[in-house]
Amino acid sequence: MKIAILGGTGSIGEGFALRWASKHDILICSREVDKAIKAADEYEGTIKNKGLFCCGITGCSNESGIKDVDVVVLSVPYQGVIPLLKNLRHFFKDQIVISLVVPMKKNKWFEYTPPAQGSAALEIKDVLPKSVKVVSAYHNISAKKLLNLELSLDYDVVVCGDDEDAKRTVMELTKEIKNLHPLDGGGLASSYMIESLTPFLINLALRNGLCDLGVKFV
Amino acid sequence: MKIAILGGTGSIGEGFALRWASKHDILICSREVDKAIKAADEYEGTIKNKGLFCCGITGCSNESGIKDVDVVVLSVPYQGVIPLLKNLRHFFKDQIVISLVVPMKKNKWFEYTPPAQGSAALEIKDVLPKSVKVVSAYHNISAKKLLNLELSLDYDVVVCGDDEDAKRTVMELTKEIKNLHPLDGGGLASSYMIESLTPFLINLALRNGLCDLGVKFV
Repeated sequence: MKIAILGGTGSIGEGFALRWASKHDILICSREVDKAIKAADEYEGTIKNKGLFCCGITGCSNESGIKDVDVVVLSVPYQGVIPLLKNLRHFFKDQIVISLVVPMKKNKWFEYTPPAQGSAALEIKDVLPKSVKVVSAYHNISAKKLLNLELSLDYDVVVCGDDEDAKRTVMELTKEIKNLHPLDGGGLASSYMIESLTPFLINLALRNGLCDLGVKFV
Repeated sequence: MKIAILGGTGSIGEGFALRWASKHDILICSREVDKAIKAADEYEGTIKNKGLFCCGITGCSNESGIKDVDVVVLSVPYQGVIPLLKNLRHFFKDQIVISLVVPMKKNKWFEYTPPAQGSAALEIKDVLPKSVKVVSAYHNISAKKLLNLELSLDYDVVVCGDDEDAKRTVMELTKEIKNLHPLDGGGLASSYMIESLTPFLINLALRNGLCDLGVKFV
């Protein structure tokens, strides 16, 4: 498959690029094309230095990245994602869009601040063409752990979406990352639950002297 | 300590009685005293048949159970808990009250239906005297697994409460149950998060062919 990662120069985007590049063509997308190309080269270097196979990681603009791919990963902060997608709206057709987006703010602790739609995933669905299949997943995966290719990620990933085929594709992509276990979280309307887990996990870590918490349902 | 379990004749109440009876005096409370006495005798029998030590499990009415204890466990359904506590209000002084209560309804799936206060825990705090210390915990522990004394429960228990001493006491009680790990979840206002995990876990289990799911933060 061809996978475009919006926000691909950030650490969570880099993590997915490194983890999926052995099986898929990865496009690292950024507003700044030079930055995207530089990051893509670095990621390819990282993989090849480990003696691993790499299908190819290419840097490009957001517009050209989105156009011809099967999957678009939204690893961008909530602040800015809606204006960004409104600008890019016309480059979307029927891609699977994976939202990792969590709307939250920090006072003393982190707080989930969903939009009127109930979750970032539903708001994102609202601004994209109806033919796009929005799926939400990976909100609670630590970027630091994802980046460490030696690390087996023994976590559960709850996947929500209204299109069953798209959800299945994302669940399959999840299984390709060593030890991640996908779980069907139901329709996109259930996304608020997995989005709200992120500030909850950060607060839990801060309060209990832990870090990079993920979740397992056992 | 003396621990009164409201709803002590139910399976989750039985589980806590069996797990804590080796260190604490347990009072099984019910509107129907005969039923409470019968259950208490059965639980003591279960423990002694396993050759384990039992401090003593006594059946009694809700009123007499609450009066002189250190901790009151509310293992009753949300429906009915507020009228019940309004009736019992005058028997409370400064006990620690542990709320396991989850307001939820079932349509096709389970849905969290918090009251206006934001969570059952906050609503319960509202109807009890101000001197009572409400702590919320154990919403996501499987009754079936708790009842199986051979089973080591390798789960995290998030504990929320505004009184730090009371919260610490509940965290210590948690550690006394083999392999349960308490985590500080912050003030009582954070209870909505752990309450809402219960319908989420039930739905996740139903959708993925699993059962009796608990949670671990790793």
